[in-house]
Amino acid sequence: MDFKIKSTTQEKLNSINQFLHQEVYPIENLFLHHQWQELFPALEKLREKVKKLGLWAPHMPTSTGGTFTSLVDLALIGEVLGQSPLGHFIFGCQAPDAGNAELLHMFGTDEQKAHWLTPLVAGNIRSCFAMTEPHTAGSNPTLLDSTADLKNGMWHINGRKWFTTAAEGADFTIAMVVTDKNAAKHQRASMIIVPTNTKGFEIIRNISVMGAEGKGYFSHAEVQFNNCIVPEKNIIGKTGSGFALAQERLGPGRIQHCMRWLGIGERSINISKKFLNQRKISSTQVLAQQPLMQAQISDSLAELAAARLLVLQTAWSIEQHGFQASKNMVSLIKFHTANVVQRVVDRSLQSLGGLGMTDDTVLSFFYREERAARIYDGADEVHRIVAAKNFLKK
Amino acid sequence: MDFKIKSTTQEKLNSINQFLHQEVYPIENLFLHHQWQELFPALEKLREKVKKLGLWAPHMPTSTGGTFTSLVDLALIGEVLGQSPLGHFIFGCQAPDAGNAELLHMFGTDEQKAHWLTPLVAGNIRSCFAMTEPHTAGSNPTLLDSTADLKNGMWHINGRKWFTTAAEGADFTIAMVVTDKNAAKHQRASMIIVPTNTKGFEIIRNISVMGAEGKGYFSHAEVQFNNCIVPEKNIIGKTGSGFALAQERLGPGRIQHCMRWLGIGERSINISKKFLNQRKISSTQVLAQQPLMQAQISDSLAELAAARLLVLQTAWSIEQHGFQASKNMVSLIKFHTANVVQRVVDRSLQSLGGLGMTDDTVLSFFYREERAARIYDGADEVHRIVAAKNFLKK
Amino acid sequence: MDFKIKSTTQEKLNSINQFLHQEVYPIENLFLHHQWQELFPALEKLREKVKKLGLWAPHMPTSTGGTFTSLVDLALIGEVLGQSPLGHFIFGCQAPDAGNAELLHMFGTDEQKAHWLTPLVAGNIRSCFAMTEPHTAGSNPTLLDSTADLKNGMWHINGRKWFTTAAEGADFTIAMVVTDKNAAKHQRASMIIVPTNTKGFEIIRNISVMGAEGKGYFSHAEVQFNNCIVPEKNIIGKTGSGFALAQERLGPGRIQHCMRWLGIGERSINISKKFLNQRKISSTQVLAQQPLMQAQISDSLAELAAARLLVLQTAWSIEQHGFQASKNMVSLIKFHTANVVQRVVDRSLQSLGGLGMTDDTVLSFFYREERAARIYDGADEVHRIVAAKNFLKK
Amino acid sequence: MDFKIKSTTQEKLNSINQFLHQEVYPIENLFLHHQWQELFPALEKLREKVKKLGLWAPHMPTSTGGTFTSLVDLALIGEVLGQSPLGHFIFGCQAPDAGNAELLHMFGTDEQKAHWLTPLVAGNIRSCFAMTEPHTAGSNPTLLDSTADLKNGMWHINGRKWFTTAAEGADFTIAMVVTDKNAAKHQRASMIIVPTNTKGFEIIRNISVMGAEGKGYFSHAEVQFNNCIVPEKNIIGKTGSGFALAQERLGPGRIQHCMRWLGIGERSINISKKFLNQRKISSTQVLAQQPLMQAQISDSLAELAAARLLVLQTAWSIEQHGFQASKNMVSLIKFHTANVVQRVVDRSLQSLGGLGMTDDTVLSFFYREERAARIYDGADEVHRIVAAKNFLKK
Repeated sequence: MDFKIKSTTQEKLNSINQFLHQEVYPIENLFLHHQWQELFPALEKLREKVKKLGLWAPHMPTSTGGTFTSLVDLALIGEVLGQSPLGHFIFGCQAPDAGNAELLHMFGTDEQKAHWLTPLVAGNIRSCFAMTEPHTAGSNPTLLDSTADLKNGMWHINGRKWFTTAAEGADFTIAMVVTDKNAAKHQRASMIIVPTNTKGFEIIRNISVMGAEGKGYFSHAEVQFNNCIVPEKNIIGKTGSGFALAQERLGPGRIQHCMRWLGIGERSINISKKFLNQRKISSTQVLAQQPLMQAQISDSLAELAAARLLVLQTAWSIEQHGFQASKNMVSLIKFHTANVVQRVVDRSLQSLGGLGMTDDTVLSFFYREERAARIYDGADEVHRIVAAKNFLKK
Repeated sequence: MDFKIKSTTQEKLNSINQFLHQEVYPIENLFLHHQWQELFPALEKLREKVKKLGLWAPHMPTSTGGTFTSLVDLALIGEVLGQSPLGHFIFGCQAPDAGNAELLHMFGTDEQKAHWLTPLVAGNIRSCFAMTEPHTAGSNPTLLDSTADLKNGMWHINGRKWFTTAAEGADFTIAMVVTDKNAAKHQRASMIIVPTNTKGFEIIRNISVMGAEGKGYFSHAEVQFNNCIVPEKNIIGKTGSGFALAQERLGPGRIQHCMRWLGIGERSINISKKFLNQRKISSTQVLAQQPLMQAQISDSLAELAAARLLVLQTAWSIEQHGFQASKNMVSLIKFHTANVVQRVVDRSLQSLGGLGMTDDTVLSFFYREERAARIYDGADEVHRIVAAKNFLKK
Repeated sequence: MDFKIKSTTQEKLNSINQFLHQEVYPIENLFLHHQWQELFPALEKLREKVKKLGLWAPHMPTSTGGTFTSLVDLALIGEVLGQSPLGHFIFGCQAPDAGNAELLHMFGTDEQKAHWLTPLVAGNIRSCFAMTEPHTAGSNPTLLDSTADLKNGMWHINGRKWFTTAAEGADFTIAMVVTDKNAAKHQRASMIIVPTNTKGFEIIRNISVMGAEGKGYFSHAEVQFNNCIVPEKNIIGKTGSGFALAQERLGPGRIQHCMRWLGIGERSINISKKFLNQRKISSTQVLAQQPLMQAQISDSLAELAAARLLVLQTAWSIEQHGFQASKNMVSLIKFHTANVVQRVVDRSLQSLGGLGMTDDTVLSFFYREERAARIYDGADEVHRIVAAKNFLKK
Repeated sequence: MDFKIKSTTQEKLNSINQFLHQEVYPIENLFLHHQWQELFPALEKLREKVKKLGLWAPHMPTSTGGTFTSLVDLALIGEVLGQSPLGHFIFGCQAPDAGNAELLHMFGTDEQKAHWLTPLVAGNIRSCFAMTEPHTAGSNPTLLDSTADLKNGMWHINGRKWFTTAAEGADFTIAMVVTDKNAAKHQRASMIIVPTNTKGFEIIRNISVMGAEGKGYFSHAEVQFNNCIVPEKNIIGKTGSGFALAQERLGPGRIQHCMRWLGIGERSINISKKFLNQRKISSTQVLAQQPLMQAQISDSLAELAAARLLVLQTAWSIEQHGFQASKNMVSLIKFHTANVVQRVVDRSLQSLGGLGMTDDTVLSFFYREERAARIYDGADEVHRIVAAKNFLKK
């Protein structure tokens, strides 16, 4: 066992961290007060700088325009980037584009790659992913309602999806739809590329989530497919491979989420630390000297540090033994990390008192936005049951 | 011991509950999507109905235009009203006006009552309360920074306050300011009425709290007193009585907060219950049949029911034995109830999956807004220490 | 609502509390160091004193030799007695005799009452209750394995039971056995009185529980029924009424358990309080001044006080509305109180440091013995599911 | 980063694990029913086997008779051994002998090594460690009461100690005593070797801990030093170096404790797993299929796996960077792991129902004995404050 981070990786992490402090944190204020129109140009500028620094798209191989080295390295990078809600976007590895790019890279045809993958990795277009449905339980794939019927070489797609993140402004979506109702449970669905300018594709609304509808990249749409017609070749992989692909997409994606959450936790503690050291509670004392504040900090430090190693071990395991062999670990880190980070953010917020409730720091954004971490990509309850079933039957 | 609610009270509670279902819940959607301009007229209409029903201002004696009967009754009413974020406002007993009215009723001069209390109870004007300061720790009163100097029969007030809830649109504020720096620790401050049209009174901003600045009644201002000059007679009670009055104001106010939070918890469970019974997780099962969902419901039911009785006992104790004798109980319920309700809301939100994150139900509002319950009116940490100190020294 | 305890009840509680301090706590040391032979005479002496004070058997009506007044009063008495592991025994209302006496009083024939009930209430004999089986899940009554076959007016009883508390030294057991395998699920079993000197009744062992086998009243036996033959008239109530009777027995019994646990919690906090005020942590400070110690005390105070009221409300509800109407509340208090008290004992033990681990105080006994509270009479998991199901279907 | 365990280490771990299953678990029953006289010969036999297998004393260098390779390897071995309460003793690396041997190895004179260390490592004698005092707070070293006065080349030792583990049967103790009251706070105390046959050394009692006094190695004594006189050369290291040595002793010792606790957690889950798969809850289902049981298993798996990596990283860090640089991590793992394991044991015990309370499995031993893990070697509260202070001042 060797817990040392490679020195080349460490240098890269240091550069990214420095970039965050110098370039990213200063524009968070723009973000926190929601002027997407003002924010976007600032993000674009930073994206150019990142490309020049050779740090762009750390999740994609160099052959596609990225700077990927290893899954563990990517995890470590994701942790640093996670410290800011803008980190991943500025470095070109933001969800859902990152997952879509990985899918297309692994399973797309050459034509699909040329048409969609290249500009996506380059950051010239955006995409979205339409899987979750408002009226069916995400935990049970056999209940999926949306359909694609193949007629004369064209898919006719119908259905309602929601939490289609970043649909506003996306050039295409990948739609998870039932292509064969009568197939075996996990072979009913397929993934199909649908350009957002397809007739019948409609954004019903940007869902108001935690008090805000969001705009552009920072939005979650409810979308309707009203007999959207796209060519047969727009399918990714084989007919019926939807769930298999979803697993491939979500597995490493969960590593990315977990590491991003850990970054959030670390940022939260650091904000708390700074405040505790500044806030006077008497003529001679600062809040950092209050034992209750100290104790909660230690709880957070220990939980974060432990969870972090488990996520890194999982990334390492996927690299060494493949996703199937690491599936159970992925379930464990998904729910465990989400809960750890929720607690850490909650404690940090509490330590700031009234300030924690405001948007004068990023904590309140973390608090409300990342509540979703325990829900998306498999709710706590699902992963807790799945992981235990596997363990118990061994 | 008798846990029975008086039948007259129970009938009143039933009426209020029915009113909420028929009149209030239907307009929550307006509220959740933040059109204050559209919302306000709807609220005004309902306020008129409440007055006609004889349910207006349940916290104030009939002599002042209210319908108060007892503190326990008020607590029970507050619980029902708490089920909607609009309940207290519609019934004319919303913070901070309610607390201000109680203060003026108990300690105001006849002139103050005529001028400020009467229209306030009638709902014709609004008010705010300026105590918390952005740069001093609320937990230590000796650190208060804002001042009022008496010169030629006029108070000259200077200082910065924040979390001055509902300042936008208020006709006056009650300002908690240092009137004698050299007095004993708890006799340094006084409360002074400052009309908001006083020269030098400035709303710096509506603080963005949990992603939204809010408007009108639903806002929290940062305010500046730039040498605001008001007559000497605007002081409430005696010079130096600020902390004593604050205790009087906050004590029963904490009962109101706790009961309101319990109402929030109950509403949350009911929303969860409805969803769990509707959401299919297979062709034959609904989510309500999932043991993990069941178990969390029971946790919430037990915690809420227990906390509720403790708050009611505290209200009863204040009535029987006075606030001083019940002070410790007030500290216990303040932090305990806030934590119980935070857990209940969190579990309920989780049970709805993605829907819980949206503003399609009121849960996400409760989740983010009521996070403050563990902070305002004495943070958890303060009450946990205060209550224990008293217990340990007995 | 009226939270006042009747003055006659309060006086009785004060007397009992004084008795505990003067007579019972001083002999706990005997108990903690396990000399049952030495302990028993001391207990007998105190039982005589209790009888003379007119406080004997507070759970049984005066007609049977007890001093019962109301279920709420009994609950309050049980709370005070619960402060010592010896309290209930000394006052003649210890499990399992108390439950057995209630059963016989309500459902026994005159002959059964004369023969078994009278000496039992008088404390002249002891009894036990054989329900739980080592190899079948207590949560599912249809799995019960032990049987009683009626042949020629005699029950032939066979089977293995365990956690037959206090079997050593008992004069009879009540056995819960299947009398009709083919009956409806909840009508398969009956309760039958089996004198312990019946041929074929065998105590296999006193189970070693948490490190100790125990002796006499303080033991939990594994017992075997090897074709024990008892007369048909030994059945309590009707054939097949076993589960109905068990509900009747366990319902109010759970109130008694909960109140006893609360007494344990209160004693624990008081032991902690005394230690914290004595233990020096520096030349000028005692441990009671440490904020982490203070905070945990407040958590315990709030949780206990809230849970206590919920149990009292449940007792009141059973009295007002009957057990069926209060069933759900009983489930809630059973698991909730058990968990609260476990946390309280754990925190108190922690506050004593190494001393908490020793048998120099009663805390370590509470810690290990009352771990069972979350298991017996329906494990947490069972009650959490049962209570939620009822709530969700309403 | 590389999470792979070296293949030679892995083979050793497999051998040890196999040994536990084949030789150690079968004699746990002897242990659980407390016949030290019967147990001891069985332990001696296994110790001989371990020596023959070349696995003896994994904490000590080969030069002293042990088989130490690296701190990470030792940690991994400690985890496997921790699965049985007998593991460490059988492999010759049990506390407090292990820590005493490490001390003597690092700081002892050649004479001390020849006389005490060699037979200690060989398992021919036992030792104990007298530091904690019944009447002074362990968290504050300046309060230490026991003294050693140097007169005519002899230490005159006086004082009372407790939790002197395994004093009964030990050949010597290391006593932590004040040698200079007036020295700086952390230079007041020294460690001195006191043979247990020294006149004036008295075992007052084996403290009854969690219901049992214990015997021989499995006991915790209260000891009195009544003017014990030992030669000046019996001091370990320099006068006044007591606290420095204690840090050296406790640092790596905490790694050992943590890994042992993790082994306890893993054993607990495995006992639970076995029971859940066997216990029928209906004609077709076993308890392993109950979602509440599944969920708790996953919580335990995740928490253990994460904590484990943090402990291993700490061991690695001590090896790479020394103890001083890793001190904060040691504080974090100490309290974090103890709490994780307490929760894991508690959940596992609960999953067994009544069986969990008995000594038919080792769970109830773990439950009561390891409650001390949150107290000894620095209580939770101490480590939570210490770790935070260091973090906050950086």
